[in-house]
Amino acid sequence: MKSEFTRILNKYSKINKEKSLPSISIDCVVFGFDTSSLKILLVRLKEKDEWALPGGYLWKNENLDDGAYRILEERTGAKEIYLNQFKTFGNVNRTKDFFDGHPDDLWQKQRFLSVGYYALTNFAKVEPKVDDLSDASEWKNVHELPNLMMDHEEIFNTALLELRKGLNYRPVGLNLLPEKFTMPELQRLYEIVLDKPLNRGNFYRKMTKYGILNKLKETRKGGAHKAPNLYTFNLEVYNEALENGFKEAW
Amino acid sequence: MKSEFTRILNKYSKINKEKSLPSISIDCVVFGFDTSSLKILLVRLKEKDEWALPGGYLWKNENLDDGAYRILEERTGAKEIYLNQFKTFGNVNRTKDFFDGHPDDLWQKQRFLSVGYYALTNFAKVEPKVDDLSDASEWKNVHELPNLMMDHEEIFNTALLELRKGLNYRPVGLNLLPEKFTMPELQRLYEIVLDKPLNRGNFYRKMTKYGILNKLKETRKGGAHKAPNLYTFNLEVYNEALENGFKEAW
Repeated sequence: MKSEFTRILNKYSKINKEKSLPSISIDCVVFGFDTSSLKILLVRLKEKDEWALPGGYLWKNENLDDGAYRILEERTGAKEIYLNQFKTFGNVNRTKDFFDGHPDDLWQKQRFLSVGYYALTNFAKVEPKVDDLSDASEWKNVHELPNLMMDHEEIFNTALLELRKGLNYRPVGLNLLPEKFTMPELQRLYEIVLDKPLNRGNFYRKMTKYGILNKLKETRKGGAHKAPNLYTFNLEVYNEALENGFKEAW
Repeated sequence: MKSEFTRILNKYSKINKEKSLPSISIDCVVFGFDTSSLKILLVRLKEKDEWALPGGYLWKNENLDDGAYRILEERTGAKEIYLNQFKTFGNVNRTKDFFDGHPDDLWQKQRFLSVGYYALTNFAKVEPKVDDLSDASEWKNVHELPNLMMDHEEIFNTALLELRKGLNYRPVGLNLLPEKFTMPELQRLYEIVLDKPLNRGNFYRKMTKYGILNKLKETRKGGAHKAPNLYTFNLEVYNEALENGFKEAW
């Protein structure tokens, strides 16, 4: 007797054969931040002791980026989150073991290259959803990840490395931080992504030089210490730097 | 009567249907440097007034990166050149116009996503080759590019932007410069890639801080001025930084 998981695979095999481009899949590494830890969104596969990055297939008549946004929205409910394509994963046997025992004409069993995207968001924006093939969708701390299927650990590791490298030439923080934030909160985000402590004075100077911050007249009230200044991102400079990199570097 | 170009397309349609993965192609932006200008390698298509990036299809049993190295070697004769996958291009109609008028069962007429790689080399390492579909293979100055087919201009522009951004966190120069070089020669490379003049003192300080250079006891003799120092790259630090980014940035 076929398991529920196999029955659903077979259903989607027919649908995808009709509707999706062969050889291509999309996987999303969705980073979330809650001012104290960095997490990613994972789904747990039914009947398997394995978790997966939210992903899917590309429709035949759909642009690649549009497919990534659609899949992200289907799996997380999140719209208008900045997605960054970072690498395509194409080893020959990357998905092979997963479909052992299934018939060769199962559409999902063919060889797939997966185009990796990462997204940066805050938890409040996202409602994790489950679909037919999964029975859980949860935020997991990047330091305590469960067992991931296929090469999804490699995809995650590469996304984290790209995010870290990206901090050197591209702004980060929009979508991850509240609209108004303090310099220590921004520094904490950098420290968590980089996984190391940073010098406060150097951080302040470097951030200020980039010109992506607007200092507000408001301060954050309520603490025991001097009320810290609040900042917002200067969206024009931020978006320009997101597209073309920081000007300062060379 | 079928043109020669069509006859060759049909021949490869049969071969590729058998041997290659559907939906996926690979295009290479091969940058070369001759101490005064930055060029890329292009092939001219037979019977077309269009040039193309050297590219090809991925074999069914071949890892993606291996396919990129194979295609680069087939088209340029170049081995052991550092290839950097930078983006996958996946708009729906990116290759559509090119095959107008050809039958729909021509394998090459299907929708393809193209995985872009860039390579850095010097002219001496490469022997441009032509294949059945092209009648020329030449180095072209990036400031004077001919008419490129499909979305190859976008692929080139993206590669150049990635190369520029990469200068901020990753070393560049190995493969582009002779084994021993002077600081002004290295600076000239940066200026050409960035397309702007750099301050000599800042460049020297920043380069020195990265720790990727070994200063030799030799100097470059023969000029009218004081003989400039020669440098080589410290391969261990260089390769570490190539893999993981410069340590200094944050």
